[in-house]
Amino acid sequence: MKSIDINCDMGESYGNFSIGNDAAIFPHITSSNIACGMHAGDPYHIEKTIDMALQHGVQIGAHPGYPDFQGFGRRVIPMKREELKAYVKYQVAALKGMVESAGGKLAYVKPHGALYNEIASNASEATTVIAGIKAIDPKLVVMGLAGSHVEQIAAEAGMAFVAEAFADRRYEANAKLRSRLKENAVIGSAEDAARQVVSITLNNETKTLDGEPVSIKAQSFCIHGDNPVAVDILKTITDQLKAAGIEKRAFSL
Amino acid sequence: MKSIDINCDMGESYGNFSIGNDAAIFPHITSSNIACGMHAGDPYHIEKTIDMALQHGVQIGAHPGYPDFQGFGRRVIPMKREELKAYVKYQVAALKGMVESAGGKLAYVKPHGALYNEIASNASEATTVIAGIKAIDPKLVVMGLAGSHVEQIAAEAGMAFVAEAFADRRYEANAKLRSRLKENAVIGSAEDAARQVVSITLNNETKTLDGEPVSIKAQSFCIHGDNPVAVDILKTITDQLKAAGIEKRAFSL
Amino acid sequence: MKSIDINCDMGESYGNFSIGNDAAIFPHITSSNIACGMHAGDPYHIEKTIDMALQHGVQIGAHPGYPDFQGFGRRVIPMKREELKAYVKYQVAALKGMVESAGGKLAYVKPHGALYNEIASNASEATTVIAGIKAIDPKLVVMGLAGSHVEQIAAEAGMAFVAEAFADRRYEANAKLRSRLKENAVIGSAEDAARQVVSITLNNETKTLDGEPVSIKAQSFCIHGDNPVAVDILKTITDQLKAAGIEKRAFSL
Amino acid sequence: MKSIDINCDMGESYGNFSIGNDAAIFPHITSSNIACGMHAGDPYHIEKTIDMALQHGVQIGAHPGYPDFQGFGRRVIPMKREELKAYVKYQVAALKGMVESAGGKLAYVKPHGALYNEIASNASEATTVIAGIKAIDPKLVVMGLAGSHVEQIAAEAGMAFVAEAFADRRYEANAKLRSRLKENAVIGSAEDAARQVVSITLNNETKTLDGEPVSIKAQSFCIHGDNPVAVDILKTITDQLKAAGIEKRAFSL
Repeated sequence: MKSIDINCDMGESYGNFSIGNDAAIFPHITSSNIACGMHAGDPYHIEKTIDMALQHGVQIGAHPGYPDFQGFGRRVIPMKREELKAYVKYQVAALKGMVESAGGKLAYVKPHGALYNEIASNASEATTVIAGIKAIDPKLVVMGLAGSHVEQIAAEAGMAFVAEAFADRRYEANAKLRSRLKENAVIGSAEDAARQVVSITLNNETKTLDGEPVSIKAQSFCIHGDNPVAVDILKTITDQLKAAGIEKRAFSL
Repeated sequence: MKSIDINCDMGESYGNFSIGNDAAIFPHITSSNIACGMHAGDPYHIEKTIDMALQHGVQIGAHPGYPDFQGFGRRVIPMKREELKAYVKYQVAALKGMVESAGGKLAYVKPHGALYNEIASNASEATTVIAGIKAIDPKLVVMGLAGSHVEQIAAEAGMAFVAEAFADRRYEANAKLRSRLKENAVIGSAEDAARQVVSITLNNETKTLDGEPVSIKAQSFCIHGDNPVAVDILKTITDQLKAAGIEKRAFSL
Repeated sequence: MKSIDINCDMGESYGNFSIGNDAAIFPHITSSNIACGMHAGDPYHIEKTIDMALQHGVQIGAHPGYPDFQGFGRRVIPMKREELKAYVKYQVAALKGMVESAGGKLAYVKPHGALYNEIASNASEATTVIAGIKAIDPKLVVMGLAGSHVEQIAAEAGMAFVAEAFADRRYEANAKLRSRLKENAVIGSAEDAARQVVSITLNNETKTLDGEPVSIKAQSFCIHGDNPVAVDILKTITDQLKAAGIEKRAFSL
Repeated sequence: MKSIDINCDMGESYGNFSIGNDAAIFPHITSSNIACGMHAGDPYHIEKTIDMALQHGVQIGAHPGYPDFQGFGRRVIPMKREELKAYVKYQVAALKGMVESAGGKLAYVKPHGALYNEIASNASEATTVIAGIKAIDPKLVVMGLAGSHVEQIAAEAGMAFVAEAFADRRYEANAKLRSRLKENAVIGSAEDAARQVVSITLNNETKTLDGEPVSIKAQSFCIHGDNPVAVDILKTITDQLKAAGIEKRAFSL
């Protein structure tokens, strides 16, 4: 039986500043990318989020970002290589220790926002980030953009890689995400999003806006938890996966 | 041969904001309390400080504080118990992971500033902090004020404890530190400070301002690294310890 | 025709961290307490909030707090007198300059959260905060808790004062707010809250839980904008005020 | 009698994190660029620095930067135009209010670090920053890099401009600063630095490394206060200016 992983960013609240709808989303996902306290999250919310993940049997990943609460990790903060590496190590180490103290296991690392995009397009940045992850634990899996050079850079570092695709984003014929600057970059319909998940999972293929087939291989799909209809999308995906005979399950290598 | 440990707060710089004189102090100490990024320190400086400690063969402890850069951890920040515990866990976990990734071993935890004082006088706070440390690693040693209730609270939690005294502070007849609000609370002379270290180490005893003997037991002495004459004090202590036949060595239990 | 002022805390969002529902609340209030960037708010959201206030013809006050994003200004941060005064000056000056640059006028200052409570119970803290406000502009009105010593301390400093009561909180026979630690401290019904506003406005009187009359004088009522039913409460108050022949209007002295 | 202004960045300390040597430098300068609390400085240190400036009769400018304590304002933080403008307004307004409350007058604004460099090379950024300054007070003078487009952009906005040169940096034949990536970019000798100040002041000219004359017009010279020999350089400049019959005096337009 085929299976697919559904991941979502979690634990992004900070003190009284509340973000997301973690309690409603946890029942529907199989992997949780937990913020590490540098672009979002604080130790108290991190701990509560880890506890929720364990209660729901959801796999846990660290979700480090640029140190930038003001910009929510969505801005590229210029950092020296050794600085960036140390910031990645710090965040992954903090999360790993807290997960283990709760009786869990940190399975993977998925960088956040601008850092995610940066390592998908900048090899030096990617090498630095992966070296930081490996320094804390070489058995951690790196989760990154399907079709990007991150997979190869992880492989060269001896690190396992999981490719991630997006349920609700259109792909171009060259297998890149359609730019948000263009129309119809986001798939508005839960049905269409779920259809893309099923198609990529079963056939390693989805369709562009023009209906052309495009090849995408992914072991995990990202859902945006701050989307007000995230839970609806998750339910629709769950239903379609079931109908297609695909199991929703945390990735394993 | 008797031995004694000399510890100092290290790694407190933050970005371009430089504090202390770590490079000059490392050759003279045997244990380093490394800031964890909440009241001082950032991942880059933490990493550099860990590297320096390993180069000098200096034992490493985590030095967590209240999350308060503005107040440098010297103000009591009101926090709920579960919040405080999570903040301690986060800091200790981050440091532990970074030390281990550098090939070292985190040996102990000494809380910083207001948190140090708070747990010495507030049993509930002490229980919470020690629970946080234990949650990350029950084999970590707790370093706290000699003669305080922290020793017993650590023991009840099954955690090892190291008592710390101060080289440059006067003690009262009741074995408490003379308040800084009174005259002569600080020992100005490096010779007198060193004499106190030797006397407590050899005889578990020092003298009050009035010359009365007071009993103090300690396995480690704290040196204030931001003191401009810290290196002089350290050299004098080293000389007097040698003259008294006492080895300067990291504590071991 | 009698009139009464309705105020609400506004502009508390920070970067991507969104708080409150300012756009929905502005049409219903007459004074807005705008966060100053130390416990909540950032310059961009402050500017947008000022613009909204001016568009709705809503009076503007500065809403300074302890420098504490983590605790949202709800924790007492220990500060030296001169420090606290400087932090108040900074926040009020920033808001005043930004309001004036938008063509508006800063009318008053209402401290936030723990700072609000602290100056209502601690005369030294109140004197310091009022001195800070006066240093920036002696014509600013101080808004504080009805029946507290803040009124007299403001008067001694030559500063005008506006007393504030709460629409949705029960009062005790001694005219103090019923502690939130007791049952029924909060008035759950919008009708009852509106009734209290009308009664205090018309008769300087409301009723305790036991039905005893208690004397309260106030020129403004605070509405909690983070209450999910804040808009409902505001509409009910507006209706009852109208029915009672009371005008909803920004306070003026 | 010719005169020249000497400016220095001041008030950059933050809580317990101390930067610079303000007390020693104030007697030797005529204009002080005071940090505004976003890349450095806090309200308490800002207030103390304003007081020192007034005591020494030193002219006061606001020194806003990118909101970035971690990077000390030396990193370009990507911000939307309206965001950047609001952050500039906030900082200038805070400083202006605090200076005026101390009985002084805010005379000018000199952006800090990466923001200074950014507006010297990026017209859109410069237009935004100058609009922010003007929004707070159109009579403020903009201080920027001599020979850059900032002068013209300020003029188009109707804002006065003061051109600044560097005492201790080499200039190239094209009147640009010699890159720090090249050798001899910094003038190490206090005598040579002072000679450059005198030469530009008297003759609008200095010499490149190769001895070629290069034309530079400036009304103010920047001294780097974090240079350990800053006071020596300042004394040498003062002596040479005196010998050349040039008055050291705050710029006036």
